[in-house]
Amino acid sequence: MNNFVFNLPTRIFFGRGMENQVGVETARYSKKILLHFGGSSASKSGLLGRVRASLAAAGVEWVELGGVKPNPALSLVYKGIELCRKERIGLVLAVGGGSVIDSSKAIAAGTLYSGDVWDFYTGKAEPPKTALPVATILTIPAAGSESSCGSVITKEEGALKRPLNADCIYPRFSILDPELAFTLPENQIANGAADIMAHLMERYFTNVDHVEFSDRLIEATLRTVVAVAPRVLADKTGYDAWAELMWAGAIAHNNLLDRGRVGDWASHDIEHELSGIYDIAHGAGLAVVFPAWMKYNLRHDIPRFAQFAFRVWGVEPDGFEPERAAREGIARLEAFWKSLGLSVRLSGLGIGLDRAAEMARKCTDADSHSVGQFVHLTSADIEKIYRLAE
Amino acid sequence: MNNFVFNLPTRIFFGRGMENQVGVETARYSKKILLHFGGSSASKSGLLGRVRASLAAAGVEWVELGGVKPNPALSLVYKGIELCRKERIGLVLAVGGGSVIDSSKAIAAGTLYSGDVWDFYTGKAEPPKTALPVATILTIPAAGSESSCGSVITKEEGALKRPLNADCIYPRFSILDPELAFTLPENQIANGAADIMAHLMERYFTNVDHVEFSDRLIEATLRTVVAVAPRVLADKTGYDAWAELMWAGAIAHNNLLDRGRVGDWASHDIEHELSGIYDIAHGAGLAVVFPAWMKYNLRHDIPRFAQFAFRVWGVEPDGFEPERAAREGIARLEAFWKSLGLSVRLSGLGIGLDRAAEMARKCTDADSHSVGQFVHLTSADIEKIYRLAE
Repeated sequence: MNNFVFNLPTRIFFGRGMENQVGVETARYSKKILLHFGGSSASKSGLLGRVRASLAAAGVEWVELGGVKPNPALSLVYKGIELCRKERIGLVLAVGGGSVIDSSKAIAAGTLYSGDVWDFYTGKAEPPKTALPVATILTIPAAGSESSCGSVITKEEGALKRPLNADCIYPRFSILDPELAFTLPENQIANGAADIMAHLMERYFTNVDHVEFSDRLIEATLRTVVAVAPRVLADKTGYDAWAELMWAGAIAHNNLLDRGRVGDWASHDIEHELSGIYDIAHGAGLAVVFPAWMKYNLRHDIPRFAQFAFRVWGVEPDGFEPERAAREGIARLEAFWKSLGLSVRLSGLGIGLDRAAEMARKCTDADSHSVGQFVHLTSADIEKIYRLAE
Repeated sequence: MNNFVFNLPTRIFFGRGMENQVGVETARYSKKILLHFGGSSASKSGLLGRVRASLAAAGVEWVELGGVKPNPALSLVYKGIELCRKERIGLVLAVGGGSVIDSSKAIAAGTLYSGDVWDFYTGKAEPPKTALPVATILTIPAAGSESSCGSVITKEEGALKRPLNADCIYPRFSILDPELAFTLPENQIANGAADIMAHLMERYFTNVDHVEFSDRLIEATLRTVVAVAPRVLADKTGYDAWAELMWAGAIAHNNLLDRGRVGDWASHDIEHELSGIYDIAHGAGLAVVFPAWMKYNLRHDIPRFAQFAFRVWGVEPDGFEPERAAREGIARLEAFWKSLGLSVRLSGLGIGLDRAAEMARKCTDADSHSVGQFVHLTSADIEKIYRLAE
């Protein structure tokens, strides 16, 4: 186990009706905020109306900026920054899923920065030390952005999708009401489950040894998602299964589960190239990339893949041919994702290999760096992984 | 799952040599602190010397108060409060185990309170809203007080041991260096393991349903302790197993694992009467009380005890006679604790039943209230549990 610092600054309000506390909690930070959201669903469902009423009752003024799309765009972030400066905003409230939250974090960091916020995402500037406070009301369990210090933004020109991690963009508080997810369509539920599982598996595949406790916590969270995601799909307004999935999604990505270890994160980078270009959902892309990444890297650490197969998927250990058991774990993961209605092949997403080499080069910035910590991948490796996912 | 608020304000610095950061971290809160500790072991090991050097290097002044004993005494808390007021102290730094930390929390709350700090512990006063900041350097993985909002203090007169829970006494930061535990004697290691497991089991036995995720997190933590505690006893200076045990001990008691559920906590109350009177270690008392509590309450929820047996102890489920499997789980727990050198019977601690009725009455304040949330126990129930533990 490596040395580490553990710090979870996000306060979570979880359960039925918790969104009605948003006004009171927001007022602790600022009396004038940016209300940031996506399309019309939050408005149609009545959620935005309840949020406005709660803010008004607490004496909080707001300025609205909607229109966040999946793979949130840098251009809208710029617009938000301009608005926050002009209106002297004191907090950014995200109402939506990971895209809205990531966009809010970018606006919050960019507002207090004199340079170009995109520099934080490309690494041209050091990660920010200060940002406007961010708060969230989550409507889609998936990205984990509601309790993480991460944000992923897409620059439309060049279809560049890049991540930022910085302590100052942890939400101050996040409101998680499972009922807000009742109206999600099946494909978004399945994509969300894949995204949550990918956050767990990125952390699971590590070269750090003596990480038994966090191994077991990750396995426990994975088993929970495997148990409850089908129940959510079978009964989209079933509170109990939704509650498990939403809470697991928040814990999966808040860094509790990877203290003392180093995660891999290659599959995320490899996927970002896909959803950057093809505008597919991140979770849908991960369901295609992760099994291929696993097959490509299986022999790097067969005991770890075999443990994953046994503890998460119940595959009997095979001391004589451990690789057989390890491969069976990957097959079970694919079968599970297919049972949720996900495709585990690029062809299922209607994506060919014509731009595979280009994406592999972009992913490594023309081989200027490798991708992944568990195994360091070159652009040649990444292209092979796209081909395995064909 | 119940609605909940989740908030973990304690920042953890974990790993080798982390105690050398204490000066810098402390200076963020105050330049004049109370350095609170127990007996001579922290001094002999050189730890106190390193702490003093780190404080001095960061320009932090300190006043020292040692002498905390197991089952920390109210009289020393009063002395600490007086000292903090006189010296205008701005933070209480605990260097030690749960007793030192609990004493520090009481001093921190009492210093800012005009009444008698003991009133917080008896419920005569509402839990405090403010306290001096507390920080800790942990030397004994057991109580979990390093990342909890709890404190247990013993009033010598009447041998009353009572708990307080309040958000304001969460440590601001805690330093966990597994190497600091290398010098612990075997019995303290075993007591600590029992204490950690008890914190997990108190949370596990709940009447709230649809708590699958937190069930699995608790089981994962229990399995970790079961795996690593024997390794620690076999090699007392083995960093890797110690690191797992210390980190599991902190997570076991920081409220992550019981969000949305209601724990029981009767065994803690029943044990507090034992260690209040007989001055045994809390963990040693829990190893005696918990199996007896389980046997007494098994039939309240056989499926839950059977799940505990299967998932934590690997007992094969028995669909025909689930109670048999459930009982086998309790037997495995007892066998495990015995393998660590713990006694699971009062007789093994040299304690008879002559004061059982008296303790049962004290525990319920002469039957003015019941004890436990999973099953509500009267003094008659509690006396039977002491008898089962004979």
